[in-house]
Amino acid sequence: MPNPSAAMLVIGDEILSGRTQDTNTHFLAGELTKHGIDLKEVRVISDDAPVIIAAVQALSKRFDHVFTSGGIGPTHDDITADCIAEAFGAHLDVRDDARAILAAHYANSGQELNAARLRMARIPDGATLIDNPVSSAPGFSLGNVHVMAGVPTVFQAMVASVLPGLTGGEPLLSQSLRVMRGEGDIAAFLSDLAARHGDLSIGCYPFQHNGAYGANVVIRGHNGPGVDAAMRELAQEMGL
Amino acid sequence: MPNPSAAMLVIGDEILSGRTQDTNTHFLAGELTKHGIDLKEVRVISDDAPVIIAAVQALSKRFDHVFTSGGIGPTHDDITADCIAEAFGAHLDVRDDARAILAAHYANSGQELNAARLRMARIPDGATLIDNPVSSAPGFSLGNVHVMAGVPTVFQAMVASVLPGLTGGEPLLSQSLRVMRGEGDIAAFLSDLAARHGDLSIGCYPFQHNGAYGANVVIRGHNGPGVDAAMRELAQEMGL
Repeated sequence: MPNPSAAMLVIGDEILSGRTQDTNTHFLAGELTKHGIDLKEVRVISDDAPVIIAAVQALSKRFDHVFTSGGIGPTHDDITADCIAEAFGAHLDVRDDARAILAAHYANSGQELNAARLRMARIPDGATLIDNPVSSAPGFSLGNVHVMAGVPTVFQAMVASVLPGLTGGEPLLSQSLRVMRGEGDIAAFLSDLAARHGDLSIGCYPFQHNGAYGANVVIRGHNGPGVDAAMRELAQEMGL
Repeated sequence: MPNPSAAMLVIGDEILSGRTQDTNTHFLAGELTKHGIDLKEVRVISDDAPVIIAAVQALSKRFDHVFTSGGIGPTHDDITADCIAEAFGAHLDVRDDARAILAAHYANSGQELNAARLRMARIPDGATLIDNPVSSAPGFSLGNVHVMAGVPTVFQAMVASVLPGLTGGEPLLSQSLRVMRGEGDIAAFLSDLAARHGDLSIGCYPFQHNGAYGANVVIRGHNGPGVDAAMRELAQEMGL
């Protein structure tokens, strides 16, 4: 049985304008790989309601899970919850369970739970809250879409909250070998190796170091003995 | 007249598995912003021919430009050129101009121009070569799709080769103000500010520093005096 599949949807003009480097995708990709969920596609889109709604609908139909980051804060440009609710035809309003979490948090910190902050308690009907141990305001899962914050520390904490509840598959195993050979010199061998091991993914990532050409060869797959066998063939070919 | 629009297509299993952090998107986003081309969407997809072909066709129809990174090296998993050719129904084979560039490069470096390396001279009919001052093997532009390498130093050099030839628009101007106020405390003001300046994008990016809450407020737009005016209102409201 194949592993569950996933897509990531990064929502934010600040990524597309080059102001902010997205790091949430890289973090999520590593966690999903360990958990046996195959990340198949990432999209970065702007804070634009029709664009968000269309992307959520398209990706949630095609993949087992969709993870979103960004747009769930208290300001006017935080429209992700509205868009997710609209994408699924769900009612959106302040929900008592989320309001209670925020009320306790702001009482503790001596800040006011004003109208802007109360926006963060707006959760679609039928959604499950995602715990946020960093700054309290929860994310939520609605259907197969998991809605999380864009701030990396909060995003990471929410991923840790949501992943254990999802059924994983076989973790993707990976072995790599750094060889000081030009990519073009080993390409023919790698092509044969890939043909002999059709269930593995064999990648070659070239680099230059002090003027010398080298490559990192990465062999990935769900079949551990197969990865081992292919890596032994590679090492032998390289004279190691 | 609106600025030209663009999409970025990052091709590579190594990004989706979490092995490699993509940095090409962030670089391209900054360069396009300076050049007055609006990056509207980024997709990261795997080394899978039907997926690549479908994404190229979809994005090249919707946006003025598509920039791709990855999959144009000498190994078996480098299938981007094949997919671009197929997406546009163009013939693909070794082209004399590209072969001459590679022959000169490998003669200089004392390496063999073997069958694997000659794959990098396969250029679709009708494409224009993109100069690669780092490692010679060229990228290419076919229609509105600009095909570049995934290795960041090479990608960056290719962007520098291709961008001056593209018609830009008005650069996106941006000013930011760091305020030591909770995001929820300034949200109502920012919402009003955004409503009064409908042609600007006003973003708020919260942070915590030594336990204190702050936010970077970013005001972006193509209208310089408008950005200035909105920033003055913000500074006044913050008591600066």
